[in-house]
Amino acid sequence: MTSTIDSGIQPLQHDSEGARRAYELDRKHVFHSWSAQDLLDPMVIIAAEGSHVWDGEGNKYLDFSSQLVNTNIGHQHPAVVSAIAAQAAKLCTIAPGYVNDARSEAARLIAERTPGELDKIFFTNGGADANEHAVRMARLHTGRHKVLSAYRSYHGGTQLAVNLTGDPRRWASDNASTGTIHFFPPYLYRTAFHSTTKEEESQRALEHLEQLVGFEGPSTIAALILESIPGTAGIYLPPPGYLQGVRDLCTRYGIVLICDEVMSGFGRTGKWFAVEHFDVVPDLLTFAKGVNSGYVPLGGVAISPEIAATFGQRVYPGGLTYSGHPLATAAAVATIKAMEDEQTVQHAAFLGETVIGPALSGFADRHPSVGEVRGTGVFWAIELVKNRGTREPMAAYGTSSPEMNQLVAACKSRGLLPFANFNRIHVVPPCNTLVADARAGLSILDEVLDIADGFAA
Amino acid sequence: MTSTIDSGIQPLQHDSEGARRAYELDRKHVFHSWSAQDLLDPMVIIAAEGSHVWDGEGNKYLDFSSQLVNTNIGHQHPAVVSAIAAQAAKLCTIAPGYVNDARSEAARLIAERTPGELDKIFFTNGGADANEHAVRMARLHTGRHKVLSAYRSYHGGTQLAVNLTGDPRRWASDNASTGTIHFFPPYLYRTAFHSTTKEEESQRALEHLEQLVGFEGPSTIAALILESIPGTAGIYLPPPGYLQGVRDLCTRYGIVLICDEVMSGFGRTGKWFAVEHFDVVPDLLTFAKGVNSGYVPLGGVAISPEIAATFGQRVYPGGLTYSGHPLATAAAVATIKAMEDEQTVQHAAFLGETVIGPALSGFADRHPSVGEVRGTGVFWAIELVKNRGTREPMAAYGTSSPEMNQLVAACKSRGLLPFANFNRIHVVPPCNTLVADARAGLSILDEVLDIADGFAA
Ligand SMILES: Cc1ncc(COP(=O)(O)O)c(C=O)c1O
Ligand SMILES: Cc1ncc(COP(=O)(O)O)c(C=O)c1O
Repeated sequence: MTSTIDSGIQPLQHDSEGARRAYELDRKHVFHSWSAQDLLDPMVIIAAEGSHVWDGEGNKYLDFSSQLVNTNIGHQHPAVVSAIAAQAAKLCTIAPGYVNDARSEAARLIAERTPGELDKIFFTNGGADANEHAVRMARLHTGRHKVLSAYRSYHGGTQLAVNLTGDPRRWASDNASTGTIHFFPPYLYRTAFHSTTKEEESQRALEHLEQLVGFEGPSTIAALILESIPGTAGIYLPPPGYLQGVRDLCTRYGIVLICDEVMSGFGRTGKWFAVEHFDVVPDLLTFAKGVNSGYVPLGGVAISPEIAATFGQRVYPGGLTYSGHPLATAAAVATIKAMEDEQTVQHAAFLGETVIGPALSGFADRHPSVGEVRGTGVFWAIELVKNRGTREPMAAYGTSSPEMNQLVAACKSRGLLPFANFNRIHVVPPCNTLVADARAGLSILDEVLDIADGFAA
Repeated sequence: MTSTIDSGIQPLQHDSEGARRAYELDRKHVFHSWSAQDLLDPMVIIAAEGSHVWDGEGNKYLDFSSQLVNTNIGHQHPAVVSAIAAQAAKLCTIAPGYVNDARSEAARLIAERTPGELDKIFFTNGGADANEHAVRMARLHTGRHKVLSAYRSYHGGTQLAVNLTGDPRRWASDNASTGTIHFFPPYLYRTAFHSTTKEEESQRALEHLEQLVGFEGPSTIAALILESIPGTAGIYLPPPGYLQGVRDLCTRYGIVLICDEVMSGFGRTGKWFAVEHFDVVPDLLTFAKGVNSGYVPLGGVAISPEIAATFGQRVYPGGLTYSGHPLATAAAVATIKAMEDEQTVQHAAFLGETVIGPALSGFADRHPSVGEVRGTGVFWAIELVKNRGTREPMAAYGTSSPEMNQLVAACKSRGLLPFANFNRIHVVPPCNTLVADARAGLSILDEVLDIADGFAA
């Protein structure tokens, strides 16, 4: 196979022997997440740079997935790579109880960017534990137990986080004992509320939520958690007024609003945080991924003054060995600074407005297999259907399908790594993807959608 | 304050302005774990090397805590620091679905060291999520739900892990809904079984466990999790036959045995894993900390062939963005190789047998405030009492006390960072601590125990 993309980076001198050995050891010793171990045939990746990766045979791919939507500044950003080496040479690790300059500086830079007065940062290792700790803070702050979360959502893989989750990954671990209750979010394309306009969808979804809160009992509900713009579940933008309505409802009933910005944060949507699109300030905001593009595991919770005050004189009963890890926070400092220097967030907005958005609109016009396109910044979904009239999805909810597998394979054989989920292909390249690369990837998608059209009635 | 210890490393040129700023930003923006935020006055650490750290004023301390008992190879090991820099330059991050050579190699090196056939490795970010995923595997493997764990234990900070925990850190998050049930472990010094010998304690603790299993119903119990040698809870070594008895009982009832080696693994006890002291092979073994000395966040689960097979054709429903992170696993590869090259595990055993063990026995003989000393390798506890006859602890269970605070302060003012919990001081330096440093630290402890004796009747 030869790659159809060339943005000037030379193909690697590749060590196919090394790649083969990595593959063999992987199959022998690595237990993979979210997988049946014997049914895997994982791709080897031996190198990466910017928006590209190379497989074990030296083939080059354009990464339109940002891996798991985390490499917001692309692969191997030199400023971050050297900041990691510098911090490693200085101080790799120190316990959370001490003060460390990298941690302090990362906390400052994050706090300066989070909306409102979310100025205290509790660091974790990733997104799941950020959400776990946010829920704990909310429960202890309110003295209440239940947590509301949305269907069509993902909040992480640990037990509580996966029970908050509203996708099929929850089912195997759901013992209905975690105090988690799910509501229907607004999603006009497949409305649960029989709406016909965005405004109606927003208003009916809020009405539903208010009724649910009434039935569950406001005094029993500690928190409501939702992704400001849901990611893996379909990048469906909340319709006008929805997020503000949720904010108002939470305020009215003393419910802590947790916005999960693990995927939508740090430039992905064309703003530092997705909530900025809606002028909403949550009580807790969780982050991970983009905070340092995943170069070193890091996540966290930004905390309101009111909730921080709850733990002023009283112990916050939670922690982890690597909270505020120097290497991870040094990578965050370098990432945030690079994003400022290079106007990465602005570039993501620009790509959305002038490159990806228009191209996807064109796809929706031209390809009968495209049911809907949605997004902002470098955070877009193409919803594929077998039939535009019935909106029958290209793969049923919670599954893949031979058609979707074929489309993913068609992307890869053309040198594009897509992010696919159920019947959707997401367009989620790094925030600093070059315009030429973005266009090249979009034209591959255009070709692949021709194949998809063949599956559509 | 000047340090009383000098092992030849020069005091740092320190940047007191930088340290002051780190402190101020920390107080303004960092939310600390397990703490009341307004009551903190955390120490700044600006540098570290081997078994030493330096505070914001350039004072040097001998680290007898290994931070949170994680820096098994000490601070800033040059081989690991350069491996991190090299991997950062090569490939910082890649999604779990791909094959990566650092991950493959780390899995091989770990699998080669875990006992029995625990040869498949699922990587996580730390200890808590390792335990969360181990429990999930056990539940799905058995089709059962309950999990037994010990009082006097710690298994992590996320919701399920903290509910498995058997210390007061659980209380604030315990809603008695996680299917976790606690048993009494053997602990002769404060026996729950009215035993007078180790053998009796072992046998009675097993009898208690068997009764508990009978009352709970073996067919309802998915897993039993315990620390092979409990760490923070007091480094109490299981008495003869206990761990083997637990293994037999689990086998008899089809209960998955999970050994938590997050703190006891990777050389801490003078063996790669603490279970080796007892010739026991669990079904799942969890690790973190020592696997790469915490230089980059990493944890994981080593999995038996039977449990891995459960997820051969069937999806394992769990994961996390940073599972098998290249930078973290590259640090593990370098750490394990350095430990082999430098015979670090053997050195830990040697320190325990010839330096720490004998010194602590001497303390027990000479200091009336010492109730008991216990341990192996570089994993020791000194249990302090106000009265040897009544065994009244120097701080009540679950608390500190003015006396304990004074002893910790006395250690620090003498240039020693201790690990203290309730009424205990643990002696848990890095595995590769120099004999001279170990002796210097022990002689500081000897002085501090003179103060403790003044609190004892
Ligand atoms: C919105 C959201 N929340 C939480 C998580 C969990 O993060 P992690 O995988 O780092 O635990 C993810 C991961 O994809 C996510 O997309
Ligand atoms: C025995 C044991 N298990 C689990 C954990 C949790 O590990 P982490 O803090 O990395 O989540 C710890 C941490 O101290 C531990 O000592």
